Amino acid sequence: MKLVTFTHNGVTRIAALEGDKVIDLNAAFKAKLDSEGKIRAAQIAEAYVPADMTGFLQGGKESLGYAKEAVAYALESSESEVPLVFEKSQVKIGAPVTNPGKIICVGHNYREHILEMGRELPSHPVVFAKFANTIIGPEDDIPFYPISEQLDYEAEFAFVIGKRAKNVSEEEALDYVAGYAVANDVTYRDIQRRTLQWLQGKTVDGSLPLGPWMVTSDELTDPSGLEMVLTVNGEERQRTNTANQVFPVQKLVSFLSGIATLEPGDIVITGTPGGVIQAMDPQVWLKDGDVVRVEIDKVGVLENKVRAVKGE
Amino acid sequence: MKLVTFTHNGVTRIAALEGDKVIDLNAAFKAKLDSEGKIRAAQIAEAYVPADMTGFLQGGKESLGYAKEAVAYALESSESEVPLVFEKSQVKIGAPVTNPGKIICVGHNYREHILEMGRELPSHPVVFAKFANTIIGPEDDIPFYPISEQLDYEAEFAFVIGKRAKNVSEEEALDYVAGYAVANDVTYRDIQRRTLQWLQGKTVDGSLPLGPWMVTSDELTDPSGLEMVLTVNGEERQRTNTANQVFPVQKLVSFLSGIATLEPGDIVITGTPGGVIQAMDPQVWLKDGDVVRVEIDKVGVLENKVRAVKGE
Repeated sequence: MKLVTFTHNGVTRIAALEGDKVIDLNAAFKAKLDSEGKIRAAQIAEAYVPADMTGFLQGGKESLGYAKEAVAYALESSESEVPLVFEKSQVKIGAPVTNPGKIICVGHNYREHILEMGRELPSHPVVFAKFANTIIGPEDDIPFYPISEQLDYEAEFAFVIGKRAKNVSEEEALDYVAGYAVANDVTYRDIQRRTLQWLQGKTVDGSLPLGPWMVTSDELTDPSGLEMVLTVNGEERQRTNTANQVFPVQKLVSFLSGIATLEPGDIVITGTPGGVIQAMDPQVWLKDGDVVRVEIDKVGVLENKVRAVKGE
Repeated sequence: MKLVTFTHNGVTRIAALEGDKVIDLNAAFKAKLDSEGKIRAAQIAEAYVPADMTGFLQGGKESLGYAKEAVAYALESSESEVPLVFEKSQVKIGAPVTNPGKIICVGHNYREHILEMGRELPSHPVVFAKFANTIIGPEDDIPFYPISEQLDYEAEFAFVIGKRAKNVSEEEALDYVAGYAVANDVTYRDIQRRTLQWLQGKTVDGSLPLGPWMVTSDELTDPSGLEMVLTVNGEERQRTNTANQVFPVQKLVSFLSGIATLEPGDIVITGTPGGVIQAMDPQVWLKDGDVVRVEIDKVGVLENKVRAVKGE
């Protein structure tokens, strides 16, 4: 299933995307319960398939099962008191998760890039943070604030936690992953590098395009072997395959859950390969109007335009 | 006002602490509205003085004003349907903020320590992150997980954001601060240092004792000139004064809000002075049973015991 958040008439809710159909999961589940004559249908729908993504993910596989039933119902039912299905063009699609408790980012995670730089493979993942103020959706522009001239991209394969995880083994790790998405770890390079710690160049508002949806892990069962390509204005800049990760998803879930309890909705972005502007000569930084496109096999395409923000 | 969260009969709510009296702010405000014959008293109380700290802080100075009225009412009123005032010994006091959107930590921020180490004063604050899984309260033990043997303390002066802040000037900065608290940035040193980025040694579960309350910024109007002392089992290890900060609170609010939009409830811990175990010879790391106490003038005393967690 492809999970999205969407906004219609100013209200943001979660949905499943089937082709160009956007199915409101909470409304569809309530309608299905109503059709079965269930009393307290609204409350049951709210408990199992709430309209916000983190709440929905907290329901785990049970909620995902109900969501599937709801989608089947909505696509078959001919009439309903409230709209259950929208056309994609009628709504705005946002990031699949908008307010995670954690955004954990992995650095130096692509083997071929580390080796070509003459570095040794790291013994432990390098991890750093972004905060939720960075998240924007697939239909948003990347704001370029006039605090730097060095705006860079980083194509990243993201996963979202679906179940509270503490000290999880690699063997069990994928059971804790709700799904996968495409991400772009937009980075202000000079700000990243002016101190030892990268956070300040990484957590600028709007610097994490995420989406366009989350593919659930029951559908995408193997996060390895996925080709990832980033282009700027159609020109290829980054290309790799998740098979090249030094620390694949299973290892990251296990490693991170040994440090911090992971919660449903937490996002991990798993690192970027070579080809960032930082490593180019000359360095031609992103500018107003540039279109950055990241495509990952079996996941999707995330395309955002850079928009310069006027001095404030 | 000293703001706390407290748990009684399994329910966690916010309160004001007056001596040993814990005044439930939401309940007290509702009772006051009831006594005035207001209909929809519960809804008004929920809107202006909700029982969770982040919601309350979102109400800004208006909500703080109502909270003060509520406290005065509760301390004067002789009877009430529900308890408005508890004895401190009857409840468990938790961290004043338990689920912030951001925890931003500042490194290398005490002038005398930087100079004694022969370093130059930094041109920009070094900032890094912890996540909300780290927060524990003043009555909790510091869990020491068997993932490292190098557990260290860092006395820190914390402030909490009270109003959405973006591109705030230093002159206006304190208007965006809700209050101040004592913090201990507990750190697993070897984990912090095994990669370039510190996050993994900083965001272990339970590694941010915070409290015992938040002193509101209308009461503590000047965050400079506050003496801070840390002891372990009564032995002094760290001592400084917030006047020694390279980047004081005003500068940090301005700097950080130029990068990321700060939201009510966001926490900034402003750095630690010299005297950490990392810099001692020999390094005698924290161990099970050690008591770490941080005291800051006009703010409070935060004391937590270290408790070894058995291998899992």
